[in-house]
Amino acid sequence: MNYKLNNIPNRTVKPREKGLTMVMDKGLSLRQVEDFIEVAGSHTDIVKLGWTTSFVTPNLKEKLKLYRDNNIPVYFGGTLFEAFVIRNQFDDYRKVLDEYDMKYVEVSDGSIEINHDEKCEYISKLSSQVTVISEVGSKDEKKIFAPYKWIKLMKAEIEAGSWKVIAEAREGGNVGIYRDSGEVRQGLVDEILTQIPEETIIWEAPQKAQQVWFIELIGSNVNLGNIAPAEVIPLETIRLGLRGDTFNHFLNMK
Amino acid sequence: MNYKLNNIPNRTVKPREKGLTMVMDKGLSLRQVEDFIEVAGSHTDIVKLGWTTSFVTPNLKEKLKLYRDNNIPVYFGGTLFEAFVIRNQFDDYRKVLDEYDMKYVEVSDGSIEINHDEKCEYISKLSSQVTVISEVGSKDEKKIFAPYKWIKLMKAEIEAGSWKVIAEAREGGNVGIYRDSGEVRQGLVDEILTQIPEETIIWEAPQKAQQVWFIELIGSNVNLGNIAPAEVIPLETIRLGLRGDTFNHFLNMK
Amino acid sequence: MNYKLNNIPNRTVKPREKGLTMVMDKGLSLRQVEDFIEVAGSHTDIVKLGWTTSFVTPNLKEKLKLYRDNNIPVYFGGTLFEAFVIRNQFDDYRKVLDEYDMKYVEVSDGSIEINHDEKCEYISKLSSQVTVISEVGSKDEKKIFAPYKWIKLMKAEIEAGSWKVIAEAREGGNVGIYRDSGEVRQGLVDEILTQIPEETIIWEAPQKAQQVWFIELIGSNVNLGNIAPAEVIPLETIRLGLRGDTFNHFLNMK
Repeated sequence: MNYKLNNIPNRTVKPREKGLTMVMDKGLSLRQVEDFIEVAGSHTDIVKLGWTTSFVTPNLKEKLKLYRDNNIPVYFGGTLFEAFVIRNQFDDYRKVLDEYDMKYVEVSDGSIEINHDEKCEYISKLSSQVTVISEVGSKDEKKIFAPYKWIKLMKAEIEAGSWKVIAEAREGGNVGIYRDSGEVRQGLVDEILTQIPEETIIWEAPQKAQQVWFIELIGSNVNLGNIAPAEVIPLETIRLGLRGDTFNHFLNMK
Repeated sequence: MNYKLNNIPNRTVKPREKGLTMVMDKGLSLRQVEDFIEVAGSHTDIVKLGWTTSFVTPNLKEKLKLYRDNNIPVYFGGTLFEAFVIRNQFDDYRKVLDEYDMKYVEVSDGSIEINHDEKCEYISKLSSQVTVISEVGSKDEKKIFAPYKWIKLMKAEIEAGSWKVIAEAREGGNVGIYRDSGEVRQGLVDEILTQIPEETIIWEAPQKAQQVWFIELIGSNVNLGNIAPAEVIPLETIRLGLRGDTFNHFLNMK
Repeated sequence: MNYKLNNIPNRTVKPREKGLTMVMDKGLSLRQVEDFIEVAGSHTDIVKLGWTTSFVTPNLKEKLKLYRDNNIPVYFGGTLFEAFVIRNQFDDYRKVLDEYDMKYVEVSDGSIEINHDEKCEYISKLSSQVTVISEVGSKDEKKIFAPYKWIKLMKAEIEAGSWKVIAEAREGGNVGIYRDSGEVRQGLVDEILTQIPEETIIWEAPQKAQQVWFIELIGSNVNLGNIAPAEVIPLETIRLGLRGDTFNHFLNMK
C-alpha cells in the first residue's frame, strides 16, 4: 500500500483459499494483459477466459504464458466444456486441456441439459487431470431452482471433486442468484450458506451493488467472480471499506 | 481457431459482402488500435470513426494508416458529413476526403433535416469519388417513420449509389430500429426484409440482446454495426453459436 | 483540429478557469495513462485518482509524474481525505500530500458525518498548503438537502478557501444533484446558479445525458467532472455542437 491507514480490515494474501477475486478476460490483447497485471495482478487470484472466447482469440499460448509467468492461474469458461460435450468431443477437450497445459477447468451446464450424475462424473474424471471448478445455475433466466436444489447440486459437485463451486450470474449479473434486475435473491443465498461452507463458493458478482451486498454479508474475504479487469481495483477498495459503499459498514464494526 | 470444434456454423471470410462486423472507434489511441487489431482485426470488416470524433482526436493520419495497413477500411461517421453540409461546406468535405485518402464515406441525415432527393444527390455525387454507405433513421427518438417509408428511403439510396444502407441505432442502441428501451421494432425489421436484400443492410446493434436477435433472425452472417472494439470477440462467439445466447439456437438447427 | 469547420462554439483553452473537464482515473496502468494523454490530454484539465484507489494501485509516483510531465494536475479523491479524518490521521494525510508533492486536494464529506464548521476549517488549513477543491453532497442517496442548504454550504466552503466546489454525483451519476435514475434535479441546479458563480462549480456528470443537459443550460464552457477517460473525446464533441445531442442546439443559437 502506498501509505499507512489504520484499522483496515484484514485481507488474506495470495495464494489464498478465501477472499478470491476471479476476473473475466473476454478478449484482452497481450499488452492489455500486461497492463492489467501491472495494476491488478496482486489482487487477482484466478482468471477465466470468458465462455468460448479462447476459441476465436489469437495468441492464446502467449496469453496463457503471460498470466502464468505472473502467478495467476487461468482457465477456460464452462461454456467451452459444454460446447465440446454437446458435440460428443469430451475426449478432445481433455486433449485441448493437455495441449494448453491447463491446471484448472470449469464444468458447467448453463447452456446444455445434462443429467446431474453425468455432470458429476465429468467432474470426477477431470479432477484426476486438473483442478475442477464447477458452476451451478442456468444461463436461462427462466430456469429457476429452489434453494434446496442449489444446495443438493453444490454438495454433490463438491463430493465429486470440485475445488470450488461457482454460483452463476453471467457477465451481466442478471440470472442465477440474481433477478433480471440484478437484485440478489437474498433468501436463496442465505439458505445456501446454511449448508455449504462459504469459502467453497465463488459468487459471480459483476455489478458493484452485488459485490457490496456480498462483502457486507460475508466480509472482506468473500470469493467473488466475473469481475471485469478494470473493476479489480475498485473491488479491492470496497473489500477494504475504503469506498463510499462499505465505508461505514466496516467503521461501524469496530 | 485454436482447436477443433465440429459443427460450427459457416462464416464468410474477409473481404466479405455479408456477415460484416462494423466497429465504432470513438477515440482510440494508436497503441489501442494496435491492441484491437491484434485481437479482433481478423473479425472486423470496417471501422467507423464515430460521428465527428475525427475532428478532435490527434494522430488522425497515423490512425488511418494503421487500420489500412491491416486491411481494415475506415470511414468518418455520418454526423461529420452533416456538420459540413449544414455549414454549406460540402465541397470542403470532398477535399477533406481527398486529403485523408478516404475510400468510404457515410451519408446520413440523423441530425439535420434534408430533402430526400437532395440526400440522394449527395450519395450520387460522392459515389463517383468513394464508396458510399448511407444511413436511414433519425437520431431523435421522437422521429419515427412507418415501415413503408424506411423501405422507400433505402431503395432510393441504393439506387442513388449506396453500397450498403445502415439502419440507425446510435452508439446507445435506443433509436431508429429500436425502442427507447433498446428493444427491436420487430415488425419494422420484418417488413424491411421483405423488400430490401438483407446483405445490403448494416444493422446497428451495439447491445448484446440486439446482436442475438438479428443473428437468430438472419443467421451468423448478418451485417452488424456500431460494435464496440472490446465486443468484437464476444460477437464472433455469438455468430458461431458458442455463447449461451445462441448456443441452443444453432444446435437446434442441425 | 484536423480540418476546418465554420461556426464552431468558442472553447476556452488550457490552462482554463472555466470549461474544465475533470477526469476520473480509477486504476489506469502507466501505459494506459500514456494512451489517454495521447488522445485526450489536450482536452483534460485535471485528473482525480478516484476515491481511495491510490491506496491500492502500484506505481503511484510514476503515474503522478506522467500526468504532471504532461501538464495535467492530479489529485486524490475526497474519500481518501475522509478515510484519514475518520481515523484521526489528518496530520498523516498532510504528510502524504507532501510526500507525493500534491498541489491539489479534495475535501469532502460524502461518506462521513462532519460538522460543517469543522469541514471549513480543514479547507482553510489545507488551502495554506495546496489548492483545495471541496465537494458538496452525500454519497447516500437518501440524504437530500434543500437547495438553500447546498447554496449555504458552497458559499461557506468558497469563503474558507476552496478554489472550486464540486457538486456530488459519484462515478455512477445517481446521487447528489441527480435522482436515482440519473435525471438532473433541475430546480436544485437552477437555484444554485442564482447564488454561486457557475465557473466556481464543477458538476459531476458521468452520464452523457447529464453532460448534454449542463452544456445546453450553461454552454460549451461548463465545468464537468467524473468523466471516464474514454469519454473525454465524446464530451468534447458535445461541447462543440458536433454530436447529435447538441448539434441543433448550437446551430439554433446562431
